[in-house]
Amino acid sequence: MSRRTYSDPIFTLTTGPVDAYPAVLRALSRPVLYDYDPAFLEQYEATNAKVRQVFHTTAPPVILQGEPVLGLEAAAASLIAKNDVVLNLVSGVYGKGFGFWAARYAKELVELEVPYNEVLTADAVADMLKKRPDIAIVSICHHDTPSGTVNPVAQIGAVVREAGRLLIVDSVSAFGGMEVLPETCCADIFVTGPNKCLGCPPGLSLLHVSEAAWEKIAANPDAPTASILSISDWKQAFDASQPFPFTPSVSEIYALDAALDLYLEEGEQAVWARHALTAKACRAGIQAAGLRLWAASEAIASPTCTAVAIPDGVDEAKLRASIRARYGIVFSSGRAETLGKLTRIGHMGPTARPTYSLISVAAIAGGLQAAGVKGIDVGAGVAAAMTVIGEAQA
Amino acid sequence: MSRRTYSDPIFTLTTGPVDAYPAVLRALSRPVLYDYDPAFLEQYEATNAKVRQVFHTTAPPVILQGEPVLGLEAAAASLIAKNDVVLNLVSGVYGKGFGFWAARYAKELVELEVPYNEVLTADAVADMLKKRPDIAIVSICHHDTPSGTVNPVAQIGAVVREAGRLLIVDSVSAFGGMEVLPETCCADIFVTGPNKCLGCPPGLSLLHVSEAAWEKIAANPDAPTASILSISDWKQAFDASQPFPFTPSVSEIYALDAALDLYLEEGEQAVWARHALTAKACRAGIQAAGLRLWAASEAIASPTCTAVAIPDGVDEAKLRASIRARYGIVFSSGRAETLGKLTRIGHMGPTARPTYSLISVAAIAGGLQAAGVKGIDVGAGVAAAMTVIGEAQA
Amino acid sequence: MSRRTYSDPIFTLTTGPVDAYPAVLRALSRPVLYDYDPAFLEQYEATNAKVRQVFHTTAPPVILQGEPVLGLEAAAASLIAKNDVVLNLVSGVYGKGFGFWAARYAKELVELEVPYNEVLTADAVADMLKKRPDIAIVSICHHDTPSGTVNPVAQIGAVVREAGRLLIVDSVSAFGGMEVLPETCCADIFVTGPNKCLGCPPGLSLLHVSEAAWEKIAANPDAPTASILSISDWKQAFDASQPFPFTPSVSEIYALDAALDLYLEEGEQAVWARHALTAKACRAGIQAAGLRLWAASEAIASPTCTAVAIPDGVDEAKLRASIRARYGIVFSSGRAETLGKLTRIGHMGPTARPTYSLISVAAIAGGLQAAGVKGIDVGAGVAAAMTVIGEAQA
Amino acid sequence: MSRRTYSDPIFTLTTGPVDAYPAVLRALSRPVLYDYDPAFLEQYEATNAKVRQVFHTTAPPVILQGEPVLGLEAAAASLIAKNDVVLNLVSGVYGKGFGFWAARYAKELVELEVPYNEVLTADAVADMLKKRPDIAIVSICHHDTPSGTVNPVAQIGAVVREAGRLLIVDSVSAFGGMEVLPETCCADIFVTGPNKCLGCPPGLSLLHVSEAAWEKIAANPDAPTASILSISDWKQAFDASQPFPFTPSVSEIYALDAALDLYLEEGEQAVWARHALTAKACRAGIQAAGLRLWAASEAIASPTCTAVAIPDGVDEAKLRASIRARYGIVFSSGRAETLGKLTRIGHMGPTARPTYSLISVAAIAGGLQAAGVKGIDVGAGVAAAMTVIGEAQA
Repeated sequence: MSRRTYSDPIFTLTTGPVDAYPAVLRALSRPVLYDYDPAFLEQYEATNAKVRQVFHTTAPPVILQGEPVLGLEAAAASLIAKNDVVLNLVSGVYGKGFGFWAARYAKELVELEVPYNEVLTADAVADMLKKRPDIAIVSICHHDTPSGTVNPVAQIGAVVREAGRLLIVDSVSAFGGMEVLPETCCADIFVTGPNKCLGCPPGLSLLHVSEAAWEKIAANPDAPTASILSISDWKQAFDASQPFPFTPSVSEIYALDAALDLYLEEGEQAVWARHALTAKACRAGIQAAGLRLWAASEAIASPTCTAVAIPDGVDEAKLRASIRARYGIVFSSGRAETLGKLTRIGHMGPTARPTYSLISVAAIAGGLQAAGVKGIDVGAGVAAAMTVIGEAQA
Repeated sequence: MSRRTYSDPIFTLTTGPVDAYPAVLRALSRPVLYDYDPAFLEQYEATNAKVRQVFHTTAPPVILQGEPVLGLEAAAASLIAKNDVVLNLVSGVYGKGFGFWAARYAKELVELEVPYNEVLTADAVADMLKKRPDIAIVSICHHDTPSGTVNPVAQIGAVVREAGRLLIVDSVSAFGGMEVLPETCCADIFVTGPNKCLGCPPGLSLLHVSEAAWEKIAANPDAPTASILSISDWKQAFDASQPFPFTPSVSEIYALDAALDLYLEEGEQAVWARHALTAKACRAGIQAAGLRLWAASEAIASPTCTAVAIPDGVDEAKLRASIRARYGIVFSSGRAETLGKLTRIGHMGPTARPTYSLISVAAIAGGLQAAGVKGIDVGAGVAAAMTVIGEAQA
Repeated sequence: MSRRTYSDPIFTLTTGPVDAYPAVLRALSRPVLYDYDPAFLEQYEATNAKVRQVFHTTAPPVILQGEPVLGLEAAAASLIAKNDVVLNLVSGVYGKGFGFWAARYAKELVELEVPYNEVLTADAVADMLKKRPDIAIVSICHHDTPSGTVNPVAQIGAVVREAGRLLIVDSVSAFGGMEVLPETCCADIFVTGPNKCLGCPPGLSLLHVSEAAWEKIAANPDAPTASILSISDWKQAFDASQPFPFTPSVSEIYALDAALDLYLEEGEQAVWARHALTAKACRAGIQAAGLRLWAASEAIASPTCTAVAIPDGVDEAKLRASIRARYGIVFSSGRAETLGKLTRIGHMGPTARPTYSLISVAAIAGGLQAAGVKGIDVGAGVAAAMTVIGEAQA
Repeated sequence: MSRRTYSDPIFTLTTGPVDAYPAVLRALSRPVLYDYDPAFLEQYEATNAKVRQVFHTTAPPVILQGEPVLGLEAAAASLIAKNDVVLNLVSGVYGKGFGFWAARYAKELVELEVPYNEVLTADAVADMLKKRPDIAIVSICHHDTPSGTVNPVAQIGAVVREAGRLLIVDSVSAFGGMEVLPETCCADIFVTGPNKCLGCPPGLSLLHVSEAAWEKIAANPDAPTASILSISDWKQAFDASQPFPFTPSVSEIYALDAALDLYLEEGEQAVWARHALTAKACRAGIQAAGLRLWAASEAIASPTCTAVAIPDGVDEAKLRASIRARYGIVFSSGRAETLGKLTRIGHMGPTARPTYSLISVAAIAGGLQAAGVKGIDVGAGVAAAMTVIGEAQA
């Protein structure tokens, strides 16, 4: 009703919230069922079964009714007991942020931190676990989105499992966009959400909880129950014969269900491949245009997000505003320590399409040119991205 | 993709989740914007302004990103400090339930409880506050949905304010369906949600927080911050120039915004009137059909929910299943102490239409007849409801 | 943008346009594809295959891009040649209306007409065909909606086929709501549309054309081609490898496809049964309430529409306006000769649900009471409808 | 339900059907109202008022219930009487096509034809009208989409009006995307549709009919009435108090209404400007990439469609298939004489955004490179398009 100043952008190429697939948007407009209606109970069970299927787990998943910060805070609150020493692995802002929650619940927080354009190594983790045998729980942010870098979570997971510790993996912006599964990275609590690579709106957390984690939670007298922060409350909710602790977000469940159908229909390999190709083309284009990636090496750059280092002297917020005005494209800024230093191009779900890399490269390069940066070559950038796309088809 | 056993019901006449208005369903399918996109920031601010408008408050509201159990738990966690004595007013299952949260955070929980088909009186509250001057906070469930009864919250609020205590009002299933506003009931924290009388999907909490409550929260060292349970984190979020503590539920905000437009366009008086008329017709019909209301008197029966006492010997769950199969209608069961004893007909948002009272009366009466209950008169029931509707038009 | 005087009704219980199934509304909001995109070509072919499946025909159907008046005018224009004598069977306004088109194209129009509350008999048709061996084409309106009566089209079709004449059947408001198939009624051109019992918006015609009819059309030098009125132009369009004569109505095709999925999933027998039960309950209720059916006998009353005779002295338009204002329900008026004499309750697609018969009976009865008509018994009406519904479940 | 071979493309950059604006897709999913419901009558009248507003006419428009081929055939059938000599101006396939309809109804068809990459001139028309004073009606296709060229319709219209003849303008793919109004081009019948630059699905025709044209139609004894081809039947339909000749396409009207709101809100100047800029950037890019426009000069190239000449030896159908597979982009082919010789990039409604020119240029250039064409420079093409976009912002 009220007059708007800003019209919607044409392309939302962010790192989340990302735009949803058209079929997901349609699912959101399904009539809202009563949560205890048998049709909804059946739906909820079916959706859980699909989450399990995409997780490749035998244990049922847990869906929490809030975006993944809920899943992560709940994981900390549930798993970390008063006497636990926690090792938090930090390669970026989000990894660092988890430390605050871990510290709230733990006896001691130990951190292993690398510069925010690098990633952790399994060796360093192994060393630390040897040095500190009292560490009970390890936490890691798989893809630290504000840096666009991906930790080698499978190798680190193997080390943690080998050492008999529990592992919390924040795979929010990685799962669904690259090859990662809760059990292949030995996660005891694996947190993701439908709003990144699955192409849903924000509003839910998806968790895998290992048998060992369930035992640890059960043994933790301070693990939340009768609370929005409780994981246990929802343990049985996958089962249509069991009650919900409170009303699930009906419409978000519809959206998730539709997104899982799309994911399963397309096939995870195909989905991962288009995320990888989009990112690869984007990185080639960015560099050919005369720009730098934020990531210290291409090997650690995320297939779901390309963080572009912004040249000194450029106001990054103004850059994005100018790109939005010129090209109708919205990118993500950095966060905290990376704020102002990089611009992030999301390749997630519906935007993980190689063609988007062309306009992303053109827009960033064009925006910087307009800001007076010298030595930018739009044409070379787009041509390089095109070459990557072309080679993939050959 | 998977084969369904249950098809959707035709009419969801529950007490929440309720079905959404068609315009709300369409709003849910809007493209998902990046939360920091200026168009979304503007939208979020506009939606907050509309919440304030329907609340008739000058202070900005707080929207929390989870259904109202989050709002209620957050209210308890934020307002109730370690040394507080809390008086919880109990006239039903939900009021009782709040006591568990209050007890978790308070020094002492005092309860004033009435049978679950009656309501509290302002006098009893005044007496208790006199008896226990150490009570700092009073909490009340305005409309205790599992009983379908409405406490005189304006009078009780006046007593509490007069006595200088703080008041938490759970008006989740009342606001928007009857004359109640945060400030007319002297609420310091007023919690409602869009999924009842506003006709949205579940997924958000709407709060009014008084100046006194903000001060109390600020003074409470244990009030959650950097948490899903924090109210303070979201205090400034109404302002487009301020950051979000975490990603808001974009699509649910769209839905809320559309629902508020509908509410404002129709006018609160008109909305309240159709809730009242639907309930009145329903009560008349239920009684004329030979059935009993659960509420001890019609005066305390809710305009947003009619709880029908189910005759002894009838399996209430089977009754609802049979009504769903026969008539395609879903009603709500009781909860906890009222489970099995009553069936609830919702009159909320899109279902607060007098015509729905006709099929509600017919279906309950017909279902009970089919279950072998004697003395039920479907025709008399519907005719009585029709008379109420007819008189309203005259 | 502009201010509306009228808000949408709550229940559209008309004889068409009828409201669409929720899944159909969602299908309408699918992205619009280019008609020659392979995904749309595949979709169009698949939709045609489903039409053939619900038609139980081996020949491919023809979809015309306009509501069924297009299908009917095109049938007349294509099949009826300059030298043809046409027998038009008339039992109501729509049957009569077809005669105008027939007369436009035919050498001579012969009509067999019965009062508009009765239906034709196969014997009368047989007699006429014997009397007039020069009749080449017979046309009939299966369910003459403005009367709510159903002609015995299978028997009449057998007579026409036996006599070696061609038959045009207007089954627009019958197909999908009762047992009728193009070939079981020996139709040479069978016209229906998705906007009645299939629960779609108006905008398409669905035709079956027999081999004999295709030959007749091919032999008719005046049969339209390169025209919106051409059936032949679309003969091959079911085949994804063939071009469209002009752009098909992409969104309407999506809607049709979704509706056919629903129809096939539910099963035609189940769909027909709920149309029949809704109408039966409605007729029982109308009569028990003290009202009269328009149809001369219940045996000829349509399962997809109940036409209620309106007592003398009642302004039927005002009655419907008052019903809309009071109950939020929209019914259909009569048309032409039946206008003002009857009100029609649709039982089509999503509204062919027994529970709707309750509010239909209550609303008509209540509206007439409010108009001052004596001897109306709302309660008895609804109770009688309830009994019919109850018996069906037993 | 059925398994699909083709998934939807990512970008539909065709010349129609074009994809619809998101708000239009949502409008399509509004509940389907009864056409005689007062809320729909009011809606229909309001939509007509908006068409008149965007047409800048005082006379009410006519909406026909079928895509613009209906509007064009109806224009020919209604306006052209048996004794009329018609001058059909031909600069492309669609203009030529209209001649078939004109010839069907006219006494004589005269054609003035130019090569299909050129356009007509007002002088040539003036000459012809002088030479043949018996010409009563002139017809012209404003933007002959299969060529992507735009006739100077305002100048030609002035000549025709000056000469006292009637003019039929097919502005289907021009109106809404460039500066053209029914009366500024002196059209007596002006035909357009919502499926091109207004961003709606196909299914309706929008007509302006001058007073002189109404008189001519009234005087034409063969002008269709009681027919899908009748314009007169719908003359009064804009008025909510008048009946519809048959059921309007309810959902398409909703879509049109939403599209008109968008158009009016954005402002025609702004809409036209983004069509022009997108096309300009696209043309610059195409040429800088080493390709040729189909249009003989840039001055006559359409702002709503860029037709790219395809080098000899390239299989144009395979080229588009390869572009779809590689980049997820769908373009339009040529038609009839232009088929195989050019590929068309649509800039219509939601796709008339400069950023789309980048991927269009890249995709065509990349597709041709992949097909082995030498001398293509993707980077130079995109850079040139970027320069045009950049200059527009300066």
